[in-house]
Amino acid sequence: MNELTVELGERSYPILIGPGLLGQQGLLAPYVKGGRALVVSNEVVAPLHLEKLEQSLSGIDFDVLVLPDGEQTKNLDTLNQVFDRLLRDRHERSTTLIALGGGVTGDLTGFAAACYQRGVNFIQVPTTLLAQVDSSVGGKTGVNHPLGKNMIGAFYQPQVVLADIDVLHTLPPRELQAGLAEVIKYGLLGNFAFFEWLEQHIDELLKLDGKLLSEAVRICCEEKARIVAEDEREGGKRALLNLGHTFGHAIEAAMGYGVWLHGEAVATGMVMAADLSWRLGWITQEDAQRTRRLIERAGLPAVPPSEISAGRFVELMSVDKKVQSGKIRFILLRNLGEAVVDGDVPAELLQQTLAAGDALCRS
Amino acid sequence: MNELTVELGERSYPILIGPGLLGQQGLLAPYVKGGRALVVSNEVVAPLHLEKLEQSLSGIDFDVLVLPDGEQTKNLDTLNQVFDRLLRDRHERSTTLIALGGGVTGDLTGFAAACYQRGVNFIQVPTTLLAQVDSSVGGKTGVNHPLGKNMIGAFYQPQVVLADIDVLHTLPPRELQAGLAEVIKYGLLGNFAFFEWLEQHIDELLKLDGKLLSEAVRICCEEKARIVAEDEREGGKRALLNLGHTFGHAIEAAMGYGVWLHGEAVATGMVMAADLSWRLGWITQEDAQRTRRLIERAGLPAVPPSEISAGRFVELMSVDKKVQSGKIRFILLRNLGEAVVDGDVPAELLQQTLAAGDALCRS
Repeated sequence: MNELTVELGERSYPILIGPGLLGQQGLLAPYVKGGRALVVSNEVVAPLHLEKLEQSLSGIDFDVLVLPDGEQTKNLDTLNQVFDRLLRDRHERSTTLIALGGGVTGDLTGFAAACYQRGVNFIQVPTTLLAQVDSSVGGKTGVNHPLGKNMIGAFYQPQVVLADIDVLHTLPPRELQAGLAEVIKYGLLGNFAFFEWLEQHIDELLKLDGKLLSEAVRICCEEKARIVAEDEREGGKRALLNLGHTFGHAIEAAMGYGVWLHGEAVATGMVMAADLSWRLGWITQEDAQRTRRLIERAGLPAVPPSEISAGRFVELMSVDKKVQSGKIRFILLRNLGEAVVDGDVPAELLQQTLAAGDALCRS
Repeated sequence: MNELTVELGERSYPILIGPGLLGQQGLLAPYVKGGRALVVSNEVVAPLHLEKLEQSLSGIDFDVLVLPDGEQTKNLDTLNQVFDRLLRDRHERSTTLIALGGGVTGDLTGFAAACYQRGVNFIQVPTTLLAQVDSSVGGKTGVNHPLGKNMIGAFYQPQVVLADIDVLHTLPPRELQAGLAEVIKYGLLGNFAFFEWLEQHIDELLKLDGKLLSEAVRICCEEKARIVAEDEREGGKRALLNLGHTFGHAIEAAMGYGVWLHGEAVATGMVMAADLSWRLGWITQEDAQRTRRLIERAGLPAVPPSEISAGRFVELMSVDKKVQSGKIRFILLRNLGEAVVDGDVPAELLQQTLAAGDALCRS
């Protein structure tokens, strides 16, 4: 088992990474300070992993709430269902919420923990690759609003994150690929050596090589923990983690949340960011194509849906949280392995990227 | 103008107290960092005070959202209306929410500020005595749930609190009296000299003597700022501010939120706490009666509604946030001017207090 620490002073917490962690008798019990917990999961994940989670919670008095699966459950109504359950079962301020599931479950449950009685303890047990490498680490929690993704939420840190690599074997291939989009993101935004490692090992990762997956999750969590420790509330460097997300969120919103997986939208968003970086003269066309190639090799979409016009893209990106003083801020590539924030992209270059379609990074 | 500071390190903020503050040209503008704001008010307060607030915001681009009046608007649905408005008007992460109103408006708007895009700036302009001396100071924000009051919320500090004493002249007498309940609370829980000052001046305060009201608001804010600075997240001493609230919340919940004003319920709750403290042998019967007398002189109810049985009281108090390990924790009086937390009240004494009715503090 690997143990990393997210260094945030009195809010520091460990990330436990490795195979077979969920079944370990009592592993999570010491983190449930008040002796009582509510496990929040969904109807796909609970049948697969709840029984093992119970072993790691031996000695704890816990309730279970199983929600529907999917991004469309990440809203204020479902949040209220969590509060209903907590209140009906008389959970006190000393209770612990445990998220067993992917990013949706983690974001929703974390936000519920942030708000219930103005804040209770929280544990993340991410069961998708995307959640293990990204959403479960760093304390971003929240729900969507019909007018924008993740518009309502809180920065709220868990007591511990438990990433059991074995759970990835139960992931549908499409979910695994979506997770690899965020893995590739860490290479692109700040670790060129890792980008090259991924070019070398992408096929084995797709075949669920446990050792390589553990290694990839560890590196991503280290990268993220480092960035979050420097900038917990996204005042500066943390914005780089949004590489591909400005375009990606627009794709998700235009298609309806959940139609494209978050990782798929981010993958295409990263190709668009690479394309725009190339048009700005920051990276070579070869580097842009290299980005697109790795994303395509991971089985991910590299081209946005043709039904989203350039105008609609701009409209949707204008309500993104990254907008400042009316300017859309893009995370772009100064080099492969080096992302930067830019709020001054010439409109005509942006238009070219938005209109490129299958020609992204190519002509 | 009096200026106090709530000392919370990097989250410290000033409280401005005095007459005629709202009309002062540009007084609030320097606190609206991003140059844009949404003022949230209600249909009773806005016609009275919005025009003056506009003067203190000169130079700022702001929108206004006017909500219905009353405790029943303090829920997740209304919260979502604030988010709808913010998103439709494209308010960015740099925006400021300004609460112009009483405790309901302040709690709701503050919670919206805590959650919108994971946290935007926030300014409190309390327009009731209760909000000026209590709810606007200290960073407690939130909404009610059908199963419990203030069950969903956040600790979230404002940039500034502006308490204009002149607005109290527009308060209905019942609201003024409800505010005096919290004023009396500060005397009872930690400042006996202030309790005696109130015994001396209660009649003039009811007649809206501006100088004495300013003095009372200043002392209460000082008391609260001191306690909050010691214990921002209610781990210890801050719980004393809940004197009268365990009983009071049960009354509010049993009668339906808004039927009894919060201050009225707290007033009766303080009489019940005094009664129980006397039954425990902690204060004399004369001190208990002295408490009841001051509350009655302030025009406040000293007896709970007869329709709430002792059993119903216990049931409602068991879901209170102050419950720990299944035990109801009461804030009781060790002396007049000295409150303490107690989780070990003998059931038979509690029953006597709950069943006393008009005999509270008397026999």
